[in-house]
Amino acid sequence: MSSFDFRVTSRDGRARCGEMSTGHGVVHTPAFMPVGTRGAVRAVTQRDLDDLEAQIILANTYHLFLRPGDRLIARQGGLHRFMGWEKPVLTDSGGYQVFSLAPMGTVSEDGVQFRSHIDGSSHLLTPESAAEIQARLGSDIAMVLDECPSHTASREFVLESMQRTSRWARRARNRFLELKSGIVVGEEFVNPEQAQFGIVQGGVYTELREQSVHEIVDVGFESYAIGGLSVGEPVDLMYQIVSATAASLPERSARYLMGTGMPEDLVECVACGIDLFDCVLPTRNARNGQLFTRHGRIVIKNVCYAEDERPVDQDCLCYTCRNFSRAYLRHLFMAKEMTSATLNTLHNLHFYLDTMKRIRESIASGSFGKFRRQFHQMFARHSVDS
Amino acid sequence: MSSFDFRVTSRDGRARCGEMSTGHGVVHTPAFMPVGTRGAVRAVTQRDLDDLEAQIILANTYHLFLRPGDRLIARQGGLHRFMGWEKPVLTDSGGYQVFSLAPMGTVSEDGVQFRSHIDGSSHLLTPESAAEIQARLGSDIAMVLDECPSHTASREFVLESMQRTSRWARRARNRFLELKSGIVVGEEFVNPEQAQFGIVQGGVYTELREQSVHEIVDVGFESYAIGGLSVGEPVDLMYQIVSATAASLPERSARYLMGTGMPEDLVECVACGIDLFDCVLPTRNARNGQLFTRHGRIVIKNVCYAEDERPVDQDCLCYTCRNFSRAYLRHLFMAKEMTSATLNTLHNLHFYLDTMKRIRESIASGSFGKFRRQFHQMFARHSVDS
Repeated sequence: MSSFDFRVTSRDGRARCGEMSTGHGVVHTPAFMPVGTRGAVRAVTQRDLDDLEAQIILANTYHLFLRPGDRLIARQGGLHRFMGWEKPVLTDSGGYQVFSLAPMGTVSEDGVQFRSHIDGSSHLLTPESAAEIQARLGSDIAMVLDECPSHTASREFVLESMQRTSRWARRARNRFLELKSGIVVGEEFVNPEQAQFGIVQGGVYTELREQSVHEIVDVGFESYAIGGLSVGEPVDLMYQIVSATAASLPERSARYLMGTGMPEDLVECVACGIDLFDCVLPTRNARNGQLFTRHGRIVIKNVCYAEDERPVDQDCLCYTCRNFSRAYLRHLFMAKEMTSATLNTLHNLHFYLDTMKRIRESIASGSFGKFRRQFHQMFARHSVDS
Repeated sequence: MSSFDFRVTSRDGRARCGEMSTGHGVVHTPAFMPVGTRGAVRAVTQRDLDDLEAQIILANTYHLFLRPGDRLIARQGGLHRFMGWEKPVLTDSGGYQVFSLAPMGTVSEDGVQFRSHIDGSSHLLTPESAAEIQARLGSDIAMVLDECPSHTASREFVLESMQRTSRWARRARNRFLELKSGIVVGEEFVNPEQAQFGIVQGGVYTELREQSVHEIVDVGFESYAIGGLSVGEPVDLMYQIVSATAASLPERSARYLMGTGMPEDLVECVACGIDLFDCVLPTRNARNGQLFTRHGRIVIKNVCYAEDERPVDQDCLCYTCRNFSRAYLRHLFMAKEMTSATLNTLHNLHFYLDTMKRIRESIASGSFGKFRRQFHQMFARHSVDS
């Protein structure tokens, strides 16, 4: 029924390479998904993403639901056709944005009531409606609605929230299967090959994560995500939870760590067996003038770059590094030129996507451990400006 | 001494095709120069400009003088190297921005005293310093400092201003030649093949324009520009002045009409014998959501485009029109996505550059008159949204 498939092609320790097949092509994992919140990755075009060899992008259900609307996108033939992107797209459920962006979001067993951050209009997002919206968007991978508690939430609150997330997961799956089977009158399934991923919650409590894995896997999805991390908890604790949770997820499913993405996190979490990442860091930091290189971070506005003729990273083969100096990039940033955002984004995305490529190559050749050590050594050495 | 050269290659009425040779290559005229105010054309990259077959771009001396500074750019090897652009660059003199952007600009015989719009610092721009700044930038074509009076200025004021502009032109030329000969201690001439254009003023007074042509041509420059138009005067009066002034400029020099550029203006002024244009319209209007097509203008935010699956212009071969619908472009504009500015700019610049190409082809084949009639018919037909 679904053309979705995931198979592991090689392993090195717990790290693994895989092929994730979707209705819009194969994604070689471990993979990073650039974030295209409103159906566009900020400051770059789809042509740029192709040049960067982005394999899959993420779009935000919450934003697209509010504007231009999922029904409009469905009438336009779905998100791929609407945004002129023929490769895979993953959509989140909208839950995370409802909790972080929408004022007065209130959770009930039914779902989340929230007000639009654009016009204040009131909406109810349920496990069922999140599935319906994503069916209309026609993404290749849809996520279930989950609740993502604060990292300071009590164990009791996290337990209750996690259990509700499990109940929501079952409702979401049921709705997804109903939609897919075509029995829902008046609803079109824009992408018949859409897959649905379940999301494990449980905060920073290993035993709750364990329980969540059990409950979510019991519902049964094409693959699984780990949610509710990188929300402020210490990074070592995050790694610990990722490691334990990834280990208890099914070997034959893809494992997607949601929203996590400092460069060192990618490497560490691949080591835990994670296959899929998304994060706004490379694109957002690019716009703020923070550039990632193999030798650490560069804050391009710093005066030390005013006359620096070197590229951002001498070893980088991206368009920006092949053509422009730090001095020029600093000038564009200081002058608030839009081209600054574009050139910085091209570089940061190249860094992320190239890092993932090198990770895949090192796993395939059995040298991931060496890659990991070298990566951390180089990246940490100049964590302040070089 | 200068590799600058201009030769007419074909004529159709007063319209003409030419080849303008510079130190960074040949420009086929009539040509349009996209405006890269601060050393970058807003919302696009140099790669995009290459794809669009932009032959030459304009950069603003005023902006680059203030930030990052002409001396910094000289130390970086000049503007071409700094901005990673190997084709020709024309720089204006800075005068226009001093009058329009800088508060408290005061004109004396010496030059213009002004305060920076960035930090309020005080500067004096003289005919000599404008030449020096542009020598440091290393553009292929430098413009002399001129004064551009308001279109409501009295004949008496315009006469006085025009005569001062003529005196400034002689000082600017002297300084340019001194710099070029290398006799100025401590000054490097970044681009030894730089040419300098004189600027004709005289407002809307035909006889003052005539006198200005006489005085400026008497100084002697590689080529000549018509300044002080498109500053609010009626369009028919503008055409009349352009027509008379172009006719009195030397046949064997390039004629550059500064800052004028509605699409219909390009066609009309080519008919008067103009060879070179610049204007912020295609780029600025793109960012404001106004798109130019052969069939008129489109204001992309209009609700009629919300579900319009057609490209901006069905006949257009630009990246935007080949890949994206009006509905998607409207969505990006409404959502204030930066990619909106990029896609709109790619389209508008393609429209301008393609129009110039079709103008050149029609002149070369002796069918410019027919092109001109058809262009106006099509463009005027849907001047409101189609």
